[in-house]
Amino acid sequence: MFMFFDAKVINKQFKSLLKKIKDFDKIVIYRHEMPDFDAFGTQMGLYYWIKDNFPLKEVHYVGDSHRTFVPDLFPEPQVLDESWYDQNEHLAIVVDTATVDRIADRHIEKAKYVIKLDHHINVDHYANEEIVYDKFAAASELLALFVMAQPRKYIVSQDAARAFYIGIIGDTGRFQYQDVSPMTLRLAADLLATGIDKTEIYNQMYKSSLRQLNFLKFVLNNYKVSEKGTCYYVLTDEDLKRLDIEVTEGKLHINTFRNVEGVTSVVSVTEDKAKGEWRVSLRSAHKVIVNVAQQFNGGGHEYAAGAKLKSLDELPALIKALDEAE
Amino acid sequence: MFMFFDAKVINKQFKSLLKKIKDFDKIVIYRHEMPDFDAFGTQMGLYYWIKDNFPLKEVHYVGDSHRTFVPDLFPEPQVLDESWYDQNEHLAIVVDTATVDRIADRHIEKAKYVIKLDHHINVDHYANEEIVYDKFAAASELLALFVMAQPRKYIVSQDAARAFYIGIIGDTGRFQYQDVSPMTLRLAADLLATGIDKTEIYNQMYKSSLRQLNFLKFVLNNYKVSEKGTCYYVLTDEDLKRLDIEVTEGKLHINTFRNVEGVTSVVSVTEDKAKGEWRVSLRSAHKVIVNVAQQFNGGGHEYAAGAKLKSLDELPALIKALDEAE
Repeated sequence: MFMFFDAKVINKQFKSLLKKIKDFDKIVIYRHEMPDFDAFGTQMGLYYWIKDNFPLKEVHYVGDSHRTFVPDLFPEPQVLDESWYDQNEHLAIVVDTATVDRIADRHIEKAKYVIKLDHHINVDHYANEEIVYDKFAAASELLALFVMAQPRKYIVSQDAARAFYIGIIGDTGRFQYQDVSPMTLRLAADLLATGIDKTEIYNQMYKSSLRQLNFLKFVLNNYKVSEKGTCYYVLTDEDLKRLDIEVTEGKLHINTFRNVEGVTSVVSVTEDKAKGEWRVSLRSAHKVIVNVAQQFNGGGHEYAAGAKLKSLDELPALIKALDEAE
Repeated sequence: MFMFFDAKVINKQFKSLLKKIKDFDKIVIYRHEMPDFDAFGTQMGLYYWIKDNFPLKEVHYVGDSHRTFVPDLFPEPQVLDESWYDQNEHLAIVVDTATVDRIADRHIEKAKYVIKLDHHINVDHYANEEIVYDKFAAASELLALFVMAQPRKYIVSQDAARAFYIGIIGDTGRFQYQDVSPMTLRLAADLLATGIDKTEIYNQMYKSSLRQLNFLKFVLNNYKVSEKGTCYYVLTDEDLKRLDIEVTEGKLHINTFRNVEGVTSVVSVTEDKAKGEWRVSLRSAHKVIVNVAQQFNGGGHEYAAGAKLKSLDELPALIKALDEAE
């Protein structure tokens, strides 16, 4: 089987991670702000795994909340007093977060030791220790491999398995995207074999509403396709209000266009009036678009990325850059 | 791991299947008419597997064609002269077909021996030998297990793996539906590990078009939801013509409504003017609807089934039966 990592190297990294978890009595698990399924799932899966196997440790999960996930999929994130950070030496484990400014809670400065666990392209080395593989389809896949690779005395509970499964589903579009490997499917099988209820998971994850269908209808009435196949739709603040849609939901229907004949890439542009900017999501089934995202204040994965515009005046340049991407 | 079959029993069945394949010099693989991904994938996967491992045998794949699959996913089905059937003793292997009247080519009467390989509820015992497990998520899953269980001297080529992968993806909604088990994911991993290009597969399978998006827009403008959550849309022959949609495509957007809050089941009703009837597709994420399908001239799986109406006058009774299903 094709492997994109060295088993010896990753084993050593996993051993070091386990040792650090053992060494510290207090652990805080961080992830990026505006969490997606993978950020939240990786954080909570790791939380349950540590709690299940080291019940005497004090472990926390912090960060901003998100109405898509709380309370149906995950509990409300914890908030620790400033004094807690001052009084306790803690191990910070940051999952699924490429750059330090994206971490949802900024207390890692007060951590004694920081470990970064991620699957984004590694540019910002903010940690004392890094386990970063950008070919993993999800941060949850990396952590699922970690827990499944441990000796049998360490249990993988359904709580932990469910969270990692959610993360993998979320970041792979249910096993669809380019970076899904046979390992991804095998780890998912192992997680499923713990007895988790995938139907419950999918019902929660894919829960849609008549409100969202109404939004889809709007998008179908308003999308455009450039001559070179860049498909895009724009949501103004006014549209969001009329449709009862949040800024973070703007990209919701982007994948509807991903595999349409003649479409080479898809863009959603959503006004974020509070921040005075336009949030951009980019997807492609055909060409690498992360470079374009980087040109417009963003980043992400090869075929799925995000960016920002200061005004709609920049939109033609963005479309042009995507038209010309290969 | 939970198993819904007896490994000894299925091994014996697989040995018998292999023996019959060895015994016959001429084999015809049949499947149901109006093929879906699974029927076509199972048929072609088995065809390649036999050709790859027994190159001297004469093997054929027969049945009606379908523009969704031919020629992008599979080759045009073969047509054999009437005289071929008269002059040759052949083994008939019928895949993914519950009842004899659904077989796309009726020459199994002329077969010396008939084997049924299926994952639908087994009511019609038309074969000399049956390997039928209605808990398998796809007929392709059953056949993937068969080929993966063989001694190593038998190869599983990328052609065979690709066809079975397509079948599994098709009948599980990409690993989503209730009957997906850890085994489903493990077999899919094994198929993927042969080196098949899943991105090419998904691009072909999920290929959409502006024509289909236009159809989706129509559906979103015209669906209805009953008080008890039965969601339905009706396509008349006139609608089909205006939208450039074929009868077989009528159910295309049924899953759009499957997980909408408040929706308990989804129905598409499509006029088949040539046959003077209305084709019904039923889906649910919440309740078993195959009983209702059986009441209306149909059948299928617990959560995904098909039926027929003689006229739209029967529609209220169908909606009522779905409202009352549990």
